[in-house]
Amino acid sequence: MEQFDTIEQLINAFRKLPGVGVKSAERMAYQMLDSKKETRDEMIEALRSIETITKCPTCGSYQENGICPFCNDESRSDETIVVTSFFKDALAFEKLKTYHGLYHILNGSISPSKGVGVNDINIPSLFERLKGSNTKEVILATNPTLEGETTALYISKLLEKYPQIKVTRLAYGLPMGAQLDYADELTLTKALEGRSEIRKD
Amino acid sequence: MEQFDTIEQLINAFRKLPGVGVKSAERMAYQMLDSKKETRDEMIEALRSIETITKCPTCGSYQENGICPFCNDESRSDETIVVTSFFKDALAFEKLKTYHGLYHILNGSISPSKGVGVNDINIPSLFERLKGSNTKEVILATNPTLEGETTALYISKLLEKYPQIKVTRLAYGLPMGAQLDYADELTLTKALEGRSEIRKD
Repeated sequence: MEQFDTIEQLINAFRKLPGVGVKSAERMAYQMLDSKKETRDEMIEALRSIETITKCPTCGSYQENGICPFCNDESRSDETIVVTSFFKDALAFEKLKTYHGLYHILNGSISPSKGVGVNDINIPSLFERLKGSNTKEVILATNPTLEGETTALYISKLLEKYPQIKVTRLAYGLPMGAQLDYADELTLTKALEGRSEIRKD
Repeated sequence: MEQFDTIEQLINAFRKLPGVGVKSAERMAYQMLDSKKETRDEMIEALRSIETITKCPTCGSYQENGICPFCNDESRSDETIVVTSFFKDALAFEKLKTYHGLYHILNGSISPSKGVGVNDINIPSLFERLKGSNTKEVILATNPTLEGETTALYISKLLEKYPQIKVTRLAYGLPMGAQLDYADELTLTKALEGRSEIRKD
């Protein structure tokens, strides 16, 4: 119905969001139609305001108005860099409130099957910033998936040229609260391999 | 992190969409951050343009710029009215291209458990428009659910005052392509009850 091009337009806009199919997009559009003007204005405003957000040329994190919240935070130690695939992963570390170092956001993982190569993600900029830096440790915190592992392995190989920098990887094992009999074999294997001695006093 | 209030705002805006939890809203927001300006502008534009959409005071359907596509369409027969709970249900009939009558969109169903009463949905306006109208049949096309049934029953009771108007309900039965052994008991019971004689020539 040509009369409803406007609704159709909104449905199409929502369909471009990740994980949203036709039915969900329709429900979203109809809810928006029935919602108050303020609700729509909030979304419009939020979409507009993210225009001030760019990516930090140093660490690849999102920054507002050109100021990176990580690189520009002088209270952070510049001796450690946590390398993550995505910005949201860095935020997960931030929530811990125990890590006060820097980040390097790759904005992706190496994935030959998806055509993502070494130079498609922020690997060159990592080595750029290591030159003459105070970095003592690089913590590779990519996901424990095939792509994340490949990426971590690749970076660790390149880091062999920097013997003064310690390279670490997050621990593998059972997640807290897990049920042993529900753990997959690979996780259990990793948990066994990475077992540690319980201190005897 | 106060630095990311803007992202947080967008996440919150997406969370208000139906069926969207924190994780989905985050993914949506990050995709928007990484998307082209045009993609965001498309959504902003679509959200803006639905402001011209209101509800038809006669039939409860959405209308653009105050013109109802159903009520203002003179090629439609004014002898039948299909009563649906939602606008999208009316669109389902439109897709058939075999129905050329009018609609009445209730914009909800009677649901005591959700606190939706008779006067919270467009029931009064249905009887308003029947006064002095040319209506010969009202087809009750609410969903075959408890709420839809209650609504249909209630309206059919009120319509008893209009003996000149035929009141019908959509047929119940097996959906086309269904597997009999997978049909639920209620559907099968309804299909049996509503069985029709195959014409013998």
